[in-house]
Amino acid sequence: MITRDSGPQPADFADVRATNLAVVLRHLRINAPCSRADIAAATGLNKATVSSLVTDLIERRLVREVGMTTNRIGRPAMMLVLDGSPYAAIGLEVNVDYLTAVALDLAGERLLSWRRSFTGASASPGQAIASLAALAKRAVAKMAHEERRVLGLTVGLPGLVDADGVVELAPALGWHEVDLRKSLLSALNEPAYPLLVENDANLAVLAEQRFGGQGSTGNLVYLAGGAGIGAGIICDGRLLRGGRGFAGEFGHLPIDPSGPPCACGRRGCLESLAGLGGLIRRALPDAGTETTASPSEFGPHVDEIHRLARAGDAQVLAALATTGRHLGHGISIVANLINPECVALGGYFTVLAPWLIPDAERELVARSVAGHGGGTRIIASALDSSAAAAGGAAAVLDAIDAGALPTP
Amino acid sequence: MITRDSGPQPADFADVRATNLAVVLRHLRINAPCSRADIAAATGLNKATVSSLVTDLIERRLVREVGMTTNRIGRPAMMLVLDGSPYAAIGLEVNVDYLTAVALDLAGERLLSWRRSFTGASASPGQAIASLAALAKRAVAKMAHEERRVLGLTVGLPGLVDADGVVELAPALGWHEVDLRKSLLSALNEPAYPLLVENDANLAVLAEQRFGGQGSTGNLVYLAGGAGIGAGIICDGRLLRGGRGFAGEFGHLPIDPSGPPCACGRRGCLESLAGLGGLIRRALPDAGTETTASPSEFGPHVDEIHRLARAGDAQVLAALATTGRHLGHGISIVANLINPECVALGGYFTVLAPWLIPDAERELVARSVAGHGGGTRIIASALDSSAAAAGGAAAVLDAIDAGALPTP
Repeated sequence: MITRDSGPQPADFADVRATNLAVVLRHLRINAPCSRADIAAATGLNKATVSSLVTDLIERRLVREVGMTTNRIGRPAMMLVLDGSPYAAIGLEVNVDYLTAVALDLAGERLLSWRRSFTGASASPGQAIASLAALAKRAVAKMAHEERRVLGLTVGLPGLVDADGVVELAPALGWHEVDLRKSLLSALNEPAYPLLVENDANLAVLAEQRFGGQGSTGNLVYLAGGAGIGAGIICDGRLLRGGRGFAGEFGHLPIDPSGPPCACGRRGCLESLAGLGGLIRRALPDAGTETTASPSEFGPHVDEIHRLARAGDAQVLAALATTGRHLGHGISIVANLINPECVALGGYFTVLAPWLIPDAERELVARSVAGHGGGTRIIASALDSSAAAAGGAAAVLDAIDAGALPTP
Repeated sequence: MITRDSGPQPADFADVRATNLAVVLRHLRINAPCSRADIAAATGLNKATVSSLVTDLIERRLVREVGMTTNRIGRPAMMLVLDGSPYAAIGLEVNVDYLTAVALDLAGERLLSWRRSFTGASASPGQAIASLAALAKRAVAKMAHEERRVLGLTVGLPGLVDADGVVELAPALGWHEVDLRKSLLSALNEPAYPLLVENDANLAVLAEQRFGGQGSTGNLVYLAGGAGIGAGIICDGRLLRGGRGFAGEFGHLPIDPSGPPCACGRRGCLESLAGLGGLIRRALPDAGTETTASPSEFGPHVDEIHRLARAGDAQVLAALATTGRHLGHGISIVANLINPECVALGGYFTVLAPWLIPDAERELVARSVAGHGGGTRIIASALDSSAAAAGGAAAVLDAIDAGALPTP
């Protein structure tokens, strides 16, 4: 399907070469080390073309030779791998209680992974942007010190972000109409590399797809469990942003009109029932959090819930089952509307997933119109709390994989 | 974004030509009549390339010359238009109370538009398939009689259809696990043209995109209002099918756990509140339909509701406002999850849209997390009851526009 105003663009022979360079690069990302002959055999490109493409990729320092293979039948062949050394892709995440920075080389290897505590809820946008810019500068400087070229920087945060990188709304941070991209560009002195701002769950689902072992899944949802519950959605292999980039507001799906009040002012939103605040209230009634626990307490509370769940504490197990049921209710709505193959429980949900998934799956199957939940599986995310930052860096690599190769 | 296993495929110069042929064809579809020079100027392809491509398209009888322009400054130029004459794309729809067939030429002009009354609910799958095959044969025979080559045939029906054309579930028709594609292929003697089966709302949204004046909208939802409420979803210009093709089950979004019972066995599903049955019960309590009105009565009942609404009947206006509110509630869930630019009310909703939209929009804005409903507009579909059949034919044209040109 193509729209009347998008669809195929005029192509020329340069496009063919760019496409084939990307094909070879992606084959190496997934299968390296391999030889020129391996690539020709696997891609269907002829050997002369592959040799010419590989020469180009070696000149761009995207690929390097690692010596002749030994453990093969027949003539030894020169093996190739991705050469990440001269490049870096950077991702940053702004969260309520922390900032993270992740840098990846071209092969997806972590070059740095930093976490800074942060008072996002109490900081003004200006203060938050200053802290974020300082962290970005340190990451960029470290890459420069390692003589790596920064291919791009992507920032994720829990909120509605439009196509220009303006944060329309980020309730957890208390932001409204903040032009984060513009502020960061000037704080970083208008860098030459692309700088993008994106919803954190949208970036996390890119990381889940690339690093979470869900590579063959073209229809994937990541649920970011925290104070709120954001969703990142990949449909047919592509990130689903919607008309204005506001897709994935999973936390405010209406579950029960007579449910508890939600931070958004409505009642019975999914996150008021399945969010971390509700779980903590149900599991740890003595934690003294009549209202929502403050984000700084989430970590310790989740650790305690995890400990008690493993110890078989009945009250905690019941609280997890209830949260799982509400999550499954919300997931059934996603399953009926967009029929994903896989829903990954991320953020603070990940460590609790073994206790959340059974009830969530029962609810999903019970509420899905298609049999067996339409084939939707619920899994624990393979990622840690730096998922969105890793996804920000992955988004930069995705652009390279799609054919936007750096010039030599 | 690309998945690890999809992504760019190896390209060669033949792909360049195929792509550029499609570019020229699509430019003509939208802008014809125009000259070779117009196409070169608009696409950026050089004039020699355009001339060669146009020659090829003329040989394939996809394009024809219509004489020299007169009303232009400067040298007169030979004008080109799409040449639909040797081809036909066919779409069929199976509904509870009717079958429809639509054939389009390459330019999207209607060659035939048939509607047959049909007792889908009481017919067995075998009887239904026999009636459908007979209608298909008559349509194909008519095209053959006009010496048109059938480029493809697509069948739509209200149900869950998997990627192989097997109908997993079609409650309104009482179908379960019916291999419709296989049965039709044999009934039509294994035709050479592609034969596809698809959910009816998925086809209707393709028609809305192509013929509904929403051509520039890459994020569009079509709601098929009938006994149930199906949704066809286009995201980022492409039909959203989901992992198994079961996306778009809008009618069973849970709206109110204490709501009325739904045909699916649950309570408070959207279609139990916003479906045609509920509207008829509220608007025409004397219609003697304590339970759901039978599909054959929908048309007359909707006509009566329309008449009374125009006459300002208070009870009918209140019933439409209630239905509109429930619809807006459901649309707000779609807006929060996938943020479409536009939601088109189709099927039996279309004629009633002027009375449904105001309350639906209020509810959408009130329940959307993003301001102003995230920019989602609610409109009346521009299509009639043959929407899905027209969409079936449009799906065939979409494949041509995407570059799958018929051989000369």
